[in-house]
Amino acid sequence: MAERNVKLTVAYDGTNYYGFQDQSDPSLPTIQSRLEEAIALVTKTPHKINGAGRTDAGVHALGQVVNFRTSASIPTERFVPALNSVLPWDIVVVDAEEVPWDFHARYSAKRKTYRYWIDTGKVPHVLRRRYSYFVSTPLCLGRLREAAKRLVGEHDFASFQASGSSTKTTVRQIFRLDVSASDDGLITLEVEANGFLYNMVRIIVGTLIEVGRGKLSPSDMDAILAARDRKAAGPTAPPQGLCLVRVDY
Amino acid sequence: MAERNVKLTVAYDGTNYYGFQDQSDPSLPTIQSRLEEAIALVTKTPHKINGAGRTDAGVHALGQVVNFRTSASIPTERFVPALNSVLPWDIVVVDAEEVPWDFHARYSAKRKTYRYWIDTGKVPHVLRRRYSYFVSTPLCLGRLREAAKRLVGEHDFASFQASGSSTKTTVRQIFRLDVSASDDGLITLEVEANGFLYNMVRIIVGTLIEVGRGKLSPSDMDAILAARDRKAAGPTAPPQGLCLVRVDY
Repeated sequence: MAERNVKLTVAYDGTNYYGFQDQSDPSLPTIQSRLEEAIALVTKTPHKINGAGRTDAGVHALGQVVNFRTSASIPTERFVPALNSVLPWDIVVVDAEEVPWDFHARYSAKRKTYRYWIDTGKVPHVLRRRYSYFVSTPLCLGRLREAAKRLVGEHDFASFQASGSSTKTTVRQIFRLDVSASDDGLITLEVEANGFLYNMVRIIVGTLIEVGRGKLSPSDMDAILAARDRKAAGPTAPPQGLCLVRVDY
Repeated sequence: MAERNVKLTVAYDGTNYYGFQDQSDPSLPTIQSRLEEAIALVTKTPHKINGAGRTDAGVHALGQVVNFRTSASIPTERFVPALNSVLPWDIVVVDAEEVPWDFHARYSAKRKTYRYWIDTGKVPHVLRRRYSYFVSTPLCLGRLREAAKRLVGEHDFASFQASGSSTKTTVRQIFRLDVSASDDGLITLEVEANGFLYNMVRIIVGTLIEVGRGKLSPSDMDAILAARDRKAAGPTAPPQGLCLVRVDY
C-alpha cells in the first residue's frame, strides 16, 4: 500500500507516565512509548511518532495530536478501535485521519489550548484529585480575571519559562485566558496561544494563584512580564491540574 | 473527656479498595480499615466504626457517613484536618460533627442517594474512566426516562436484588430516579430511596441500559417488578460508575 501520513488525536490520564516524550531511560513508561508499542502491534512494523505537545510527567491530555508515516495496509478509520484494543486503559485514541504528507504534529501546529483545574473546596474533591490542584486558601475570582487579562496578547513571556530553557524567541501570543468557576469550588483556567514556552502554563497558573490569594496584585503582572526573568514570576503549579485540550492546524 | 458519638462524612475513590466493609481476609484494603487506622493514629486508641452504606469493591462515595463513639480528647472539628493528614489520597473526610448518643450511621439513615455515570461517547472519556461505565451502543434518553419513571414509588424490588441475598423485606420506596445527560455524552442517573437492596442500583442501571439500547421496552419494567425474580431483570452494571452521594437522617 502507498505510504500515508496518519494523524491521531489522543487523550490520556498522565498520572502514571513520565510525560509524553520518551526518556533517556527506556524503562520509564511514557505516552509516546505506549503509543509506538500499540502502533507496532497493530501494523506489525515499528513506527516513530511526532507529538504536538511534549506534556510533562503527570500532565493529562484530551486532544494531544501525533502523526506518523506508514505503509501499513490497515484502513485509517480502523486505527481507532484497533489501537484502543491494545492500549492501556489510561490512553485512548479519539480520532484518526489521513493528512497531507508534509503535515507534522508539532511544526504544523498553529494554536494550542490548555486547561488547568484548581480545586478550592473546603477539602479536596476526591474524584477530581488526580485532575486538579487543591488550593486551601480562598482565591478571588475577580483578581484572577483581572491578572489574566493582562497576559492576553503578544508578549515576551521569558519570565514564564522554566529557567535553563533555550528557545529562539520567548515572544508568544495568548489569544484568550478564561477563568471560570463551578458552584462546588472548581476553578478552570483555559488558555489558547500560538505556542507555549517550557512550563509556561504552570508558571502562569502559579503566579495567578499568588494574585488570587492576595500576595500579588493584578497590576504586578505587567512588571513580571517586563522583568523577562523567571525569578520575577510565582511558583510553578503542579502537573496534575494541567490538560492539553486541543491543537489547531 | 466524656464519651461522644462522632459522625463523619467521607468521600472516596473506591478503585483501589475491596469495598467499604472489612473483609474476612484482613490483608485486603477496605475503606473501613483505612478509616479505623487513621482514627487510631489520631486518637491513639482503636475504634470500630459503623458505615451507612456497605459500598462494594470499586464503588465510590462523595457522602458516605460513619459514626464511632470515643472518649478521645481531640475537639470534634479537629477530626477533619487530623484524619486527612494521615489518610491516603483517595479517602477524604469532608465533615465531622458530634451527634446524639443513639445515632447509628446505618440504622438511623432515612434516605440514601446514589449516582451512576454512564459514558456514551464515541470512545471512553479518559479522565472519567475510573468513574463511569462506558457503553458503546447508543442509548435513547426518552426510553431511559420512561422506564425510570415506572420504578419510582413503593415497590417490591426483589427482582433488583443480587440472588442469594436475604433481607426481611424487599419492599423499598424510590423517591426519585432522575436521568440527565451532558453535551459530551455523559449520562447521570440519580436515585434517592428509603433504602437499597444488595446491588439494587447496579441491577436497575443494567436493566435501564437494556431499555435504552432497545432490548427491553419501558413497559417491561412493570413485569420485571411483578416477577420478583432476579432472573427477570437485566445484568448488574459494573461498580466503577456508582457513587454514594448522600445519606439523610
